Amino acid sequence: MIPGSKVKRAALAVSMLLLSACASQQPVALRGTGDLGVVVERATGQLQVIETTHRRALAQVSGLGDLSHASVVFSRDSRYAYVFGRDGGLTKVDLLTATIANRVVQAGNAIGGGISQDGRILVAQNYEPGGIKAFDADTLELLADVPATYGTDGKRSKVVGLADLPGNRFVYSLFDANEIRVTDLSDPRHPKTERYPSGKQPYDALVTPDGRYYIAGLFGEDGLSMLDLWHPEEGVRTILPGYGRGEQALPVYKMPHLRGWAVAAGRAYLPAIGRHEVLVVELGSWKEVARIPVKSQPVFVMARPDGREVWVNFAFPDNSWIQVIDTVGNAIVDTLQPGRAILHMEFAPKGEEVWVSARDDNKVVIYGTAKRDKRAELPAASPSGIFFTSRAFRTGF
Amino acid sequence: MIPGSKVKRAALAVSMLLLSACASQQPVALRGTGDLGVVVERATGQLQVIETTHRRALAQVSGLGDLSHASVVFSRDSRYAYVFGRDGGLTKVDLLTATIANRVVQAGNAIGGGISQDGRILVAQNYEPGGIKAFDADTLELLADVPATYGTDGKRSKVVGLADLPGNRFVYSLFDANEIRVTDLSDPRHPKTERYPSGKQPYDALVTPDGRYYIAGLFGEDGLSMLDLWHPEEGVRTILPGYGRGEQALPVYKMPHLRGWAVAAGRAYLPAIGRHEVLVVELGSWKEVARIPVKSQPVFVMARPDGREVWVNFAFPDNSWIQVIDTVGNAIVDTLQPGRAILHMEFAPKGEEVWVSARDDNKVVIYGTAKRDKRAELPAASPSGIFFTSRAFRTGF
Repeated sequence: MIPGSKVKRAALAVSMLLLSACASQQPVALRGTGDLGVVVERATGQLQVIETTHRRALAQVSGLGDLSHASVVFSRDSRYAYVFGRDGGLTKVDLLTATIANRVVQAGNAIGGGISQDGRILVAQNYEPGGIKAFDADTLELLADVPATYGTDGKRSKVVGLADLPGNRFVYSLFDANEIRVTDLSDPRHPKTERYPSGKQPYDALVTPDGRYYIAGLFGEDGLSMLDLWHPEEGVRTILPGYGRGEQALPVYKMPHLRGWAVAAGRAYLPAIGRHEVLVVELGSWKEVARIPVKSQPVFVMARPDGREVWVNFAFPDNSWIQVIDTVGNAIVDTLQPGRAILHMEFAPKGEEVWVSARDDNKVVIYGTAKRDKRAELPAASPSGIFFTSRAFRTGF
Repeated sequence: MIPGSKVKRAALAVSMLLLSACASQQPVALRGTGDLGVVVERATGQLQVIETTHRRALAQVSGLGDLSHASVVFSRDSRYAYVFGRDGGLTKVDLLTATIANRVVQAGNAIGGGISQDGRILVAQNYEPGGIKAFDADTLELLADVPATYGTDGKRSKVVGLADLPGNRFVYSLFDANEIRVTDLSDPRHPKTERYPSGKQPYDALVTPDGRYYIAGLFGEDGLSMLDLWHPEEGVRTILPGYGRGEQALPVYKMPHLRGWAVAAGRAYLPAIGRHEVLVVELGSWKEVARIPVKSQPVFVMARPDGREVWVNFAFPDNSWIQVIDTVGNAIVDTLQPGRAILHMEFAPKGEEVWVSARDDNKVVIYGTAKRDKRAELPAASPSGIFFTSRAFRTGF
């Protein structure tokens, strides 16, 4: 008995050790994270973790709050997705385990965020209370609160059009204060902010892929406000003074997404406001060089990564269509109808495929870009934004 | 006894099950692969697996053969590095486990390779036997052998200047045949090749980041051969007809690396041959717009990812220096001396840091690019090439 029970106890002890040893390991297989991404499922408030190599969904993540206007950035190791929810929630999602690694509710009403050049700082842009907040990307600890105060009585403006810049700086616009601001977070607990008067009511903005030109759309007047971040001393210039003329009556929610603007072959392709046109503008001189007639009011105007094509989706009621522009000759070369309510497109980083969300058909449609052939469809509950981890390596998100 | 021994046997059985269960799992912690890279250690024929977030070496991998002119590309999930050795070896290295996943010896004398737009095809460019070979990126199975035959008697040319293009195509040059070729591998077992006569003895080449312009340096005559891949029907044009004039006597091994050419702010920055100058050329018109005097004969002329700066290293005996050019004003703004025999530089994908190999000091030096402050040094045995996984997402490598 004694030797036997010794062996038995020993064996059981080994079993317990092994159990804990196993438990201490992740039961998830090793894999690279370069081909991962997420699809925002607005209806269920979930995130789908997807993988582009085999065009498949890997897992779903719940508990992210209101995802009705969610935006996503990625950690510099491309393991974590940071989800900025409309309700002010900031959630760090582990793509490998499909679990929530951390979550804070950082504001009452938020409109997205960005990640610093070095990947160590997250910045949320908030409507209420108006301003930006900086967080440690590992711990989500608050590093800095930079209220968008203006005027003499401490009023705070809604913040829009946030983009990251080289040097751990962030550029953003103050809708209520007619101002563009650049906050330097290279010393994150001691932010330094520069202010640049802009046109009236900037409502969204983009920065060119090299991080040089920041261009804000204006709700309160015609034209666009442009700040050359390599020459900030020159201040904000108005470009395309006729842009949006006569269209101020449009409600904001129908204004096109500037984030979708394409920069291709030395030109910017942007949606005309309230017109069935895509405008072509020469970078640097900012002169309009062409107008391309399209099917309806463009919303997203996105360049294929090589810049040879620009893909366009449209506002309701024509939001089931996509048109493709060849940037040589600026002519429409294809018209697609992937499904109902096309809300977003995301290109593979080298451009061989594009993922398209068809909200009202509850699916994501994947096309090859060489022949524009449909490669796959994935079910998704009212999909909106699609985001791939390769965004971790691009400036201006 | 019987119940006891039953329990004992059961417990032992459980132990064995758990052991095998554990063994079937990788003993490596889960991690993202977006911040990984490799440093080629020429002296020991090893690869160092590095991680940029914490600026550290993670592991070493041996058994890669002759790494004296090794080049590296990465899988689309950024888990695997593919190492093309000078001895014709092609090795698939798992960065997560730091082990060799697969290896073939595919030629007698090779000079690098590339990976297709969709990440599914590897292509090696070979001196001996001259041509390219295509391999399955998962299995390294040979998919296609495309000999670089020319003339009437089946001679084969050395292949140089390989670059991947959209549509799973590859462009490369034939040193002995004065030709640029484009091979379409969209049906990888049935490659289709187009031929374009070029200038004499193309020795290296680059493609612009958008995959449009292919530019080959010529050993046999002055000027450069340029093929507009958006208009291949126009054939090869000679640009910068004075480039290299009077320098043909230079041996090939001292010719600058074209792969290092910078494209920044709508201009190309390229090393003058045999002169202490960097040439600035306007993209598209290909007119020389400036010459920047530098410390010595430039070798690599590399743009910081935002294009605001261009970093330059130099040929022996001045190869301990780096100079930094501000692309606004095209003036030298800094001169650094990181160590002896600076062979290569690799920028973080968003440009906040740069890793520099100092071969004769057996170290890699890491600088921040905002203040050009030294952040860290890592020991390495005669380091040459440094490659980060973010290359998986860029065209033209």
